[in-house]
Amino acid sequence: MSVFTPVSESQLEAWLKNYSVGALAALEPIAEGIENSNYFVTTTQGRYVLTLFERLPAAELPFYLELMAHLARHGIPCPAPVADLADRYLSSLNGKPAALVTRLEGASVASPGTAECAELGALLARLHLAGRSYAGYLENPRGPMWWRFAAREVRPFLDRERARLLDEEMRFQAQHRFPDLPRGAVHADLFRDNALFQGGRISGVIDFYFAGIDCFVYDLAVCANDWCLTRPEQDRRLDGPRTLALLGAYAALRPFGALERDAWPVMLRAAALRFWLSRLFDYHLPRPGELVQVHDPEHFRDILALRAAPEARAPWAA
Amino acid sequence: MSVFTPVSESQLEAWLKNYSVGALAALEPIAEGIENSNYFVTTTQGRYVLTLFERLPAAELPFYLELMAHLARHGIPCPAPVADLADRYLSSLNGKPAALVTRLEGASVASPGTAECAELGALLARLHLAGRSYAGYLENPRGPMWWRFAAREVRPFLDRERARLLDEEMRFQAQHRFPDLPRGAVHADLFRDNALFQGGRISGVIDFYFAGIDCFVYDLAVCANDWCLTRPEQDRRLDGPRTLALLGAYAALRPFGALERDAWPVMLRAAALRFWLSRLFDYHLPRPGELVQVHDPEHFRDILALRAAPEARAPWAA
Repeated sequence: MSVFTPVSESQLEAWLKNYSVGALAALEPIAEGIENSNYFVTTTQGRYVLTLFERLPAAELPFYLELMAHLARHGIPCPAPVADLADRYLSSLNGKPAALVTRLEGASVASPGTAECAELGALLARLHLAGRSYAGYLENPRGPMWWRFAAREVRPFLDRERARLLDEEMRFQAQHRFPDLPRGAVHADLFRDNALFQGGRISGVIDFYFAGIDCFVYDLAVCANDWCLTRPEQDRRLDGPRTLALLGAYAALRPFGALERDAWPVMLRAAALRFWLSRLFDYHLPRPGELVQVHDPEHFRDILALRAAPEARAPWAA
Repeated sequence: MSVFTPVSESQLEAWLKNYSVGALAALEPIAEGIENSNYFVTTTQGRYVLTLFERLPAAELPFYLELMAHLARHGIPCPAPVADLADRYLSSLNGKPAALVTRLEGASVASPGTAECAELGALLARLHLAGRSYAGYLENPRGPMWWRFAAREVRPFLDRERARLLDEEMRFQAQHRFPDLPRGAVHADLFRDNALFQGGRISGVIDFYFAGIDCFVYDLAVCANDWCLTRPEQDRRLDGPRTLALLGAYAALRPFGALERDAWPVMLRAAALRFWLSRLFDYHLPRPGELVQVHDPEHFRDILALRAAPEARAPWAA
């Protein structure tokens, strides 16, 4: 359960008078989410999600909300922020920055097949293309600068083997930056639970609160490390057909350059490193009052170790 | 049938490459509409309406499209224009200005009751409130200036009785302008066929191509003259319960000022005059190649004559 700030029906009714979405019909807390308090809100007009931002820096919020608004008006099925009568996406509720966004239909798929991976690839290509005209800028907040901070913080908790893997990977990534890779707005956290499907089609991409500007191919690597693992997932390898479905559907809409192909194995390692670090951080340095479920860091350690092994090769080179 | 500019599937497929809405699945001409060519467009992502603007002045199109975008992001269920990869709502297709907007669910209601009229009133109040932060400006293109033009054009075709009614109403309206009435973005053509219902709720307000800046209460008068007629409609009177449902639901969200109450009977006449004039114009001065069905001008002549009769009173004064 991760609703940090309670909101009563009467508080919300008063708040909704600043909007054009009709009268409140139902309010329901959402258990998922580790960064914000979320509620399902139903009005006489429609279905929405209310988010109270608990920890995200206030200066970053416009980047996320404007990005969602930008993508939504380009046809990307993502939550569309609703503007209030003062024409703002962001206002204040119970002392927290708060936003109302549209609620999307559909359900996430735990065991995606090649069809779902191809859907994801096409959607991600369209998202990247639509995002190119987005003017906002926020360097990926979980990018290399954050890795260095997090690595310093969690290293004292690691055994020798894990500390060595971390040191080696940090060194490897520092030696393999790709300043010329195509970059733009990326979701950067598009795990299976952040994509909704309906009738075999992606009906929603949600949770843009780790988005930022980074390499497009990094966004794909984050997806591959979650969507394309062989089953059972214990051996952490990428399943060939699903990985190729993801990358093939993407490339049909936004072809890869040679630089991106070369960078792929490095990006898979970078994506594994980022989530290993954040899980280590949440595990060893839980924030006060944190009640949310902590994910096992070992999953991404294993993925990183495997991707970093000398025999790892790009799936398209297989 | 009123598709003036044909669009083939291959033409549309090429055009859609400039958008992030997925691949074309179906294309279907829409018979309704007298100002534009309209198509239902289904893609792998969603359902849209494609409009090719045949006659609207190009300079006015951004006002309509930006207004729809503004209202949609405030939660008003209206078509949301889809931006292309160059971040424009308007582009060109087969030599015509063209736009893609979201397609809304629902169906219009031919015989609305008090519940539907109350829904409409609440929706219109929310639309007017949301529109107050809209920065675009376009004087209602079918306002008093256009009345004078149209009256001059159609008068030669009228018999003595009708010419006298027109002259008298033009004089009356000229003497009863209300420069201090609250104004803002109005739909100005919200007839029954421009509202979609689903499950008893308004699920869509469509066809904003007569919108402009005008008195809010004028927008209501246009609605009342169409939604609230007693049945059968031949006697053109306003049904008390439905009119009060419309106005009451509106006023619950945006209370009327004294000035607006005073102006109501004048606005009912203005709204009748505007549509009498446009129907006379379309009847007597059809545009070349026009194949669309022409509405009977007499319906609005009768409404105007009745509203202008000395015994006409505001329904809230009844």
